[in-house]
Amino acid sequence: MTTTKPLSDLTIAQQAKTLPIKEIAAKIGLQEDDLDLYGKYKAKLSYDVLDRVKTKQDGKLVLVTAINPTPAGEGKSTVTVGLGQALNQLNKQAIVCLREPSLGPTMGLKGGAAGGGFSQVLPMEDINLHFTGDMHAITSAHNTISAMIDNHLHQGNDLGIDVRRIVWKRVLDLNDRALRHVTVGLGGAAHGVPREEGFDITVASEIMAILCLADSLKDLEDRIKRIVVAYDHQQEPITAEQIGAAGAATLLLKEAFKPNLVQTIEQTPALVHGGPFANIAHGCNSLIATKTALKLGEYVVTEAGFGADLGAEKFCHIKSRVGELNPDAVVLVATVRALKMHGGVSKDQLHIENVGAVGKGMKLLAKHIDTMKKLGLPTVVALNRFNSDTEEEIATVLDWCKAHDIRASLSEVWANGGMGGQQLAEAVIDAVESNESKLSPLYELTDSIEQKIKTIAREVYGAADVTFTAKAKKQMLEIQQKGWADLPICMAKTPFSLSDDPSKFGYQQGFTITVRELKPSVGAGFLVALTGNVLTMPGLPKHPAALNMGIDESGKAIGLF
Amino acid sequence: MTTTKPLSDLTIAQQAKTLPIKEIAAKIGLQEDDLDLYGKYKAKLSYDVLDRVKTKQDGKLVLVTAINPTPAGEGKSTVTVGLGQALNQLNKQAIVCLREPSLGPTMGLKGGAAGGGFSQVLPMEDINLHFTGDMHAITSAHNTISAMIDNHLHQGNDLGIDVRRIVWKRVLDLNDRALRHVTVGLGGAAHGVPREEGFDITVASEIMAILCLADSLKDLEDRIKRIVVAYDHQQEPITAEQIGAAGAATLLLKEAFKPNLVQTIEQTPALVHGGPFANIAHGCNSLIATKTALKLGEYVVTEAGFGADLGAEKFCHIKSRVGELNPDAVVLVATVRALKMHGGVSKDQLHIENVGAVGKGMKLLAKHIDTMKKLGLPTVVALNRFNSDTEEEIATVLDWCKAHDIRASLSEVWANGGMGGQQLAEAVIDAVESNESKLSPLYELTDSIEQKIKTIAREVYGAADVTFTAKAKKQMLEIQQKGWADLPICMAKTPFSLSDDPSKFGYQQGFTITVRELKPSVGAGFLVALTGNVLTMPGLPKHPAALNMGIDESGKAIGLF
Repeated sequence: MTTTKPLSDLTIAQQAKTLPIKEIAAKIGLQEDDLDLYGKYKAKLSYDVLDRVKTKQDGKLVLVTAINPTPAGEGKSTVTVGLGQALNQLNKQAIVCLREPSLGPTMGLKGGAAGGGFSQVLPMEDINLHFTGDMHAITSAHNTISAMIDNHLHQGNDLGIDVRRIVWKRVLDLNDRALRHVTVGLGGAAHGVPREEGFDITVASEIMAILCLADSLKDLEDRIKRIVVAYDHQQEPITAEQIGAAGAATLLLKEAFKPNLVQTIEQTPALVHGGPFANIAHGCNSLIATKTALKLGEYVVTEAGFGADLGAEKFCHIKSRVGELNPDAVVLVATVRALKMHGGVSKDQLHIENVGAVGKGMKLLAKHIDTMKKLGLPTVVALNRFNSDTEEEIATVLDWCKAHDIRASLSEVWANGGMGGQQLAEAVIDAVESNESKLSPLYELTDSIEQKIKTIAREVYGAADVTFTAKAKKQMLEIQQKGWADLPICMAKTPFSLSDDPSKFGYQQGFTITVRELKPSVGAGFLVALTGNVLTMPGLPKHPAALNMGIDESGKAIGLF
Repeated sequence: MTTTKPLSDLTIAQQAKTLPIKEIAAKIGLQEDDLDLYGKYKAKLSYDVLDRVKTKQDGKLVLVTAINPTPAGEGKSTVTVGLGQALNQLNKQAIVCLREPSLGPTMGLKGGAAGGGFSQVLPMEDINLHFTGDMHAITSAHNTISAMIDNHLHQGNDLGIDVRRIVWKRVLDLNDRALRHVTVGLGGAAHGVPREEGFDITVASEIMAILCLADSLKDLEDRIKRIVVAYDHQQEPITAEQIGAAGAATLLLKEAFKPNLVQTIEQTPALVHGGPFANIAHGCNSLIATKTALKLGEYVVTEAGFGADLGAEKFCHIKSRVGELNPDAVVLVATVRALKMHGGVSKDQLHIENVGAVGKGMKLLAKHIDTMKKLGLPTVVALNRFNSDTEEEIATVLDWCKAHDIRASLSEVWANGGMGGQQLAEAVIDAVESNESKLSPLYELTDSIEQKIKTIAREVYGAADVTFTAKAKKQMLEIQQKGWADLPICMAKTPFSLSDDPSKFGYQQGFTITVRELKPSVGAGFLVALTGNVLTMPGLPKHPAALNMGIDESGKAIGLF
């Protein structure tokens, strides 16, 4: 992207010129009174705003997704931010909608989740640390339910909860593997009822998924009430409402539910709100942020987690269903490096030109374009440029797109901000204005659970078949008996492959997906189908990023990426 | 206090007229640029302010303490807020400094920790819920150190930590007894090293004590570096610095360390910042808030936790030493009801007039006044009125004070706000302007640990003697060998009695205090002497307050006291 040693994201961010958030708000028609300020550069939108804009016409919705991620990196968030900036340069009032990052990966190794280079959201230190406290509010709400469950056991267990069947783990917003499997309630009768327990990272909490799918505070509370936290000895579900914790949890979330307004490095308004896992949840920023942005901007650019097989599929079948959304265009991010990896090149050979491998990798890109077409959505390919890319490699991608009548453009937004995304923005505007989009879900909610999963596996992944373990079959039956079968499916599959085998890069055919387990998220409103081990509490690496962090003499952050 | 059914604190708070926090700041000479706003009614003071005011002259410092607390309630925070309001009515620019409440007791049964009636700090819902996120930042910083310790074990344990001697428990800001004793690292080799562990409530974290004693961000980091988190197999201490977590923890605290500005119900400025336990820590709001308030106001009214034997003693020997403070006057809060309990009346008989019992209870009050005198501090007795108090009971207290030449006044600030504290404020001004105060610590830091503890027990509690268990004796020796003996003492004793027996109400004599254990808090900079079981993770009651909480249709809090 640059030929000299690039500046770090933190350095670029700290040198950037930011406007007071009041001025950013003014760009989209909001007054200071509409904001709850969090310092000078962050604000939450008041509930008054959300009510007031409801009758306005919606802007255009652009969904940014990607090919299956690789260790080479795709830069999906960076393209999302850069595209927003580019649209603004073309005089389309654009708003960027992103997920908010979790502290766990920040302290681990992931790097910031606020874009990169000259396409970041700011203030990046705040966004990557506590931001406006949403994660902490979710942690508190979640663990209040946990404390109420264990208190219920301790005080006599009137509901007859089976301590072996409590399905509500605790959460912390940290990478902390030692908390994955714990026992609690030890130390004698004064200290609770002993039982097996575990901690997930906060973004894996069903509360996070709920916050991102609720369309009002009332709906938020209703969904929390429906959360199944345990089963009794007759295997009947016990809900958060029965535990008496739904009201307190909602109260703890009343500020967190308000969307957060920040700005990009080019002062494009950005709503950064909510960030559920993209495997056991649906992986998109909050519905309320997206819907509010659609009322306030001409163009809303948003992203979904992982690749198009997971994030975009769930955006269409879960978030869009609940929120009655219809993306006007999809941007599919790819890089030459990632295409080469999907074409069979190992990570240490990526710097060597390999046009053949790029061509081979294109089959995967083509598959995702085809899936978007099935869903009724026009696709623009964004080739996110790295400085090791050769002209011929780039041409391989762009020429293929041209030959197949697919809109495509280079993206140089990391190095050049919005200026590096002008052509991409023009292609996106063309796609949107062509009015080609009409979202048509691939399955109906009334299809059987088995049918819904098979449809996703065949149509989206290209699988030949799906097998269900005995456990999964039993669980499907139970879910049906409890009346939850009509919920949409949330697939938990490796993001690295179309198949359920993370080692199988690139385009795959003829494979079978194995569904090992089903987990109803009744509050969030979907059925999670697990195809492999999903780690819902990450660990820290041998040399965690936290080792380098600190403050300088003036109190500024250091070592934060 | 009122003869009809009184309004709830929440109702009074929600009906109160509040000024934008910018206007409150202007009263004490601060501009909007000096503030990091958190909504319209809360702000943090920027580090620029803290630097800029350093050369200004200090205002007068008034420390509010109380007789030993009873289930009848004393209303120390309420008097603190009311006195600040009354001083403002008398044209003394007063600032109130309070501790910030923890979510745990809020969800349990304690009621708000933001004063009461017409002497509250606002917005009480926010202050009692997430406020500006300080508790959450402390939780994150604390648990980041924990995650780094367990990751160190998992990655090979280069420092040779003895897993049986890790003294850094995890924390959560909740009442959750099932987390007191847990095992972590279960589930096999991929999931950490199994070991015994426990969770404390966040306010019991050494990080909280550090945040409340540090005088700069640099000092904060240095203290975090010194925290002893574990011992190796040679029983040598392992610090947070060695674990590599001190920088990240400091970074996570860089906003939390800024004092929070809010207002009382009569628009008196209030700094509400930090809230360490008053047993295993020193129980005062942050030093940086108190010092900043002294630069910004003519009078600063602050409180210390529990009764004068704990909170005020620690204020004098720990906080004042670090911060070079000298309270110009002490306000000792008492109630007729509590004096009656200390005079031998049971809780269900408190509504019956009992002048004799009040007289008997006065011995305890006299003891605390005497202790303050030994410390060189003039005392004003504030008799916090309840509507069951009879004229003769009240006269018993006030006449005794008059006869002994002790300043004293009725306080009616719960029912009448500042107007109800005019006489009290006049007495306080008189005490301050008399220039009688000269803080003289009862022990020197260079005294032996044993000598320091004995001095507190004899001079402050009135104990005949102190015994040390074999364990405590061994620990004193170890502390001396490690070079920590010159730290001040932080007594962990029951607040309900002068003795270490919580059932012994009222004035006690001839008793012996037993020190069972010593725990060095090297980062905070004190040695905790434990005289009984201290519960550092509370539990929820059978019917927790959380059961009644929620939001109404307009999104306003309900059931919060």
